[in-house]
Amino acid sequence: MKDEIKKIYDDLKSFEHKQVKIGGWVRSVRESKDFAFLDLTDGTCFKTAQVILHNTLKNYDVVSKLNTGSTVIVDGEVCLTPQNKQPFEIVATNVEVFCATDNTYPLQKKRHSVEFLREIAYLRPRTNLFSAVFRIRSVAAMAVHTYFQEHGYVYVNTPLLTTADCEGSEQMFKVTTLDLNNLPRTKDGKVDMTKDLFGKTTYITGSGQLHGEAFALAFNKIYTFGPTFRTENSNTKTHANEFWMIEPEMAFCDLDGLMDMEEDMIKSVVTYVMNKCPDELEFLDKFVSNGLLDKLKALLSSKFTRIDHKDVIDLLKKSGKKWEFEPTYESDIAKEHERYITEYFNGPVFVKNWPKDIKAYYMKLNDDNKTVAAVDLIVPISGELIGGSQREDDYDKLKLRCQQLGVDTSTIDWYLNLRKFGSCVHSGCGMGFERLVMYLTGVDNIRDVIPFARTPQNCQY
Amino acid sequence: MKDEIKKIYDDLKSFEHKQVKIGGWVRSVRESKDFAFLDLTDGTCFKTAQVILHNTLKNYDVVSKLNTGSTVIVDGEVCLTPQNKQPFEIVATNVEVFCATDNTYPLQKKRHSVEFLREIAYLRPRTNLFSAVFRIRSVAAMAVHTYFQEHGYVYVNTPLLTTADCEGSEQMFKVTTLDLNNLPRTKDGKVDMTKDLFGKTTYITGSGQLHGEAFALAFNKIYTFGPTFRTENSNTKTHANEFWMIEPEMAFCDLDGLMDMEEDMIKSVVTYVMNKCPDELEFLDKFVSNGLLDKLKALLSSKFTRIDHKDVIDLLKKSGKKWEFEPTYESDIAKEHERYITEYFNGPVFVKNWPKDIKAYYMKLNDDNKTVAAVDLIVPISGELIGGSQREDDYDKLKLRCQQLGVDTSTIDWYLNLRKFGSCVHSGCGMGFERLVMYLTGVDNIRDVIPFARTPQNCQY
Repeated sequence: MKDEIKKIYDDLKSFEHKQVKIGGWVRSVRESKDFAFLDLTDGTCFKTAQVILHNTLKNYDVVSKLNTGSTVIVDGEVCLTPQNKQPFEIVATNVEVFCATDNTYPLQKKRHSVEFLREIAYLRPRTNLFSAVFRIRSVAAMAVHTYFQEHGYVYVNTPLLTTADCEGSEQMFKVTTLDLNNLPRTKDGKVDMTKDLFGKTTYITGSGQLHGEAFALAFNKIYTFGPTFRTENSNTKTHANEFWMIEPEMAFCDLDGLMDMEEDMIKSVVTYVMNKCPDELEFLDKFVSNGLLDKLKALLSSKFTRIDHKDVIDLLKKSGKKWEFEPTYESDIAKEHERYITEYFNGPVFVKNWPKDIKAYYMKLNDDNKTVAAVDLIVPISGELIGGSQREDDYDKLKLRCQQLGVDTSTIDWYLNLRKFGSCVHSGCGMGFERLVMYLTGVDNIRDVIPFARTPQNCQY
Repeated sequence: MKDEIKKIYDDLKSFEHKQVKIGGWVRSVRESKDFAFLDLTDGTCFKTAQVILHNTLKNYDVVSKLNTGSTVIVDGEVCLTPQNKQPFEIVATNVEVFCATDNTYPLQKKRHSVEFLREIAYLRPRTNLFSAVFRIRSVAAMAVHTYFQEHGYVYVNTPLLTTADCEGSEQMFKVTTLDLNNLPRTKDGKVDMTKDLFGKTTYITGSGQLHGEAFALAFNKIYTFGPTFRTENSNTKTHANEFWMIEPEMAFCDLDGLMDMEEDMIKSVVTYVMNKCPDELEFLDKFVSNGLLDKLKALLSSKFTRIDHKDVIDLLKKSGKKWEFEPTYESDIAKEHERYITEYFNGPVFVKNWPKDIKAYYMKLNDDNKTVAAVDLIVPISGELIGGSQREDDYDKLKLRCQQLGVDTSTIDWYLNLRKFGSCVHSGCGMGFERLVMYLTGVDNIRDVIPFARTPQNCQY
């Protein structure tokens, strides 16, 4: 029915001298003597097509004056131009103007700041930057699905609505159908949550891990890939209140098996995106993040280092550096430490076996009784990309950890029961999808890798 | 590190006489004279493996008495048995018991009702029925992604949190970080929503269409695939409060183009699932929905009928049937009508050009000024599978429709602006993913195709 610019680029030979019909948008028009060049995008690929408008076109005067963003339907002949920068041009025989924009169109032909573009989130995917970023986001999502499906993982859509507040309800959004201006009350004046749709206080969850574990103990290997939510009231470059997460979970898999998978998966995703998005990556390397392509290539050829948390602290202490945050055996590592160790090992680093007191209740307690079998993957420049652990598979130990950390087990008794009913050694991790996209694109603000970002005081569109 | 039952089935020859190590769960153990048969599943495929336990095993007395659901790690040799029902068996040399269940394990070796299994949602994926259903759900999701990505669609993660209530806020969950028992008030006693995280009343959306259109006008073809929410307080076999939707949106595409895509996509997804899940479909055809495979095969070979809504009404009126719901030119068609027309045309039917008064404001008004370019895809047995339309691309007409239908445009001015800034003929649709999975599996209750279903008064796990 209609042709696409991508198809012409993909198969130049077969389009030679072919008549095509392409709907698209004007990037710019440049007039010459008897003709004009129209730079046309149809959104099917990062590249544009050059359309030749001869002044013999019946509406030449209109078309040659079109503004950026106008919609046209071009009939024309494809002519290969191997001597030019662009491998083909389309010599127009007819140009229908469907929608002409004027100078009120917010995206004029000039460079706009990312701050301005955030204000027009519904139009910014039409710019080169966001065309590249959101195409890579899409391809990266497919790379993730492809990796897990080809390796036999079952994709599980874990629920977002939950009545379990084990993650700490102050970090979760409450969800209700009640009229806030007219709340039903119990006798003692509290809000009567039994009148709500689910009969209980309900939240949107921040993780599908617990449900994922239940499915891993049936399907062996599973993954989730969906939106998650945090109520954090913080405005930084790396925080958003709505983002997407990928959470694989594997039965009969220990910490080493988990690291094997993570390394293999990341390399597979990077390879996939590099194969599918060369134009986008080249653009980003040139205009957004110099060295992006070298960084990605280096990742592919590097062996990821595996090192215990305590040995990292030793390294940091011995480094002779003056740290803003003094490294200690009991605490997390800071951004500056992450940077140091990825440079020290010249590549990605798995930091494993963390002090139990700074990690979650569900992580496998090591025999030393002091550390848990947790692992964070730290990559050069971006820092932490994936966090994971072997899961505690012993019912009594898990119960004890919950008690010690004050986790209410009344709503997660089923989760604990998984340790009675067919328990096994199992491991899993969570990767923030936006972190991955930032890593792949070199974009340093999370607001610019999410189609319509949600941050405190900002839920527009 | 570990072997998988699926890999043995996929490559029998290369596993002959090979030593394998498999972690898995006992389905059953059957004792014979000097040995026992252990039916082992490891979750990697629908099929199980038969393990031979000779009474020379050091823990034979324990292993041969294991209960359903116990976890074992089996070392053994693969022996091909082409003369048997199962193409191979594993002769165990060692069996480690990692977790033995007892008779408190809820899934004993007998047939359980789906109602009972819903009560133990965290264990039910271990049954044959749910093993088949959730594996098909995963494969169908991949089929959808594969179709759209291979056809050049960009996957867009549209936001779930929204402050626009254009869809009718009474159908949407409100989301808040405020303490419901201690709400901040304005001077006039109303709840002060400026104190909430986003400074406004915020909802979880029921559709990504509006945002999808914005991206289609940049990338040409896009799709969304994510969770959506409805507050409907109804307990039927087809309603859930949380479900997944797929919403493709195409620029330079009219109603015919939309129907072309829908037919092509559905056939592609069915083909993909039939290729990847023959064991699961055979099981479902046998035990859940007789004729399932014939139904799916018939879909692949049928040409979908395209017929106007008014012509459907004519057909229904002329049928000579007595209807529970009298068909009229002004109203929707009922389940009984859907059944009749799919039988009449012996296959899927696109019902198009619907009376405008029963359809949404964003649908393209036809020249008759009475109907809109909407289309519902009706399939045999399941009924409506996809709803879509050409979108109104004229600013003034869209504005007028919003006014007529009382749609508040103050929060969707950007959506209307898309008709000023590079508007084009464009179309899109929405497919409930659970409807698709029900169609593919023959399962007739939506609670049984969702890992952890959310319905009124039911948000457990």
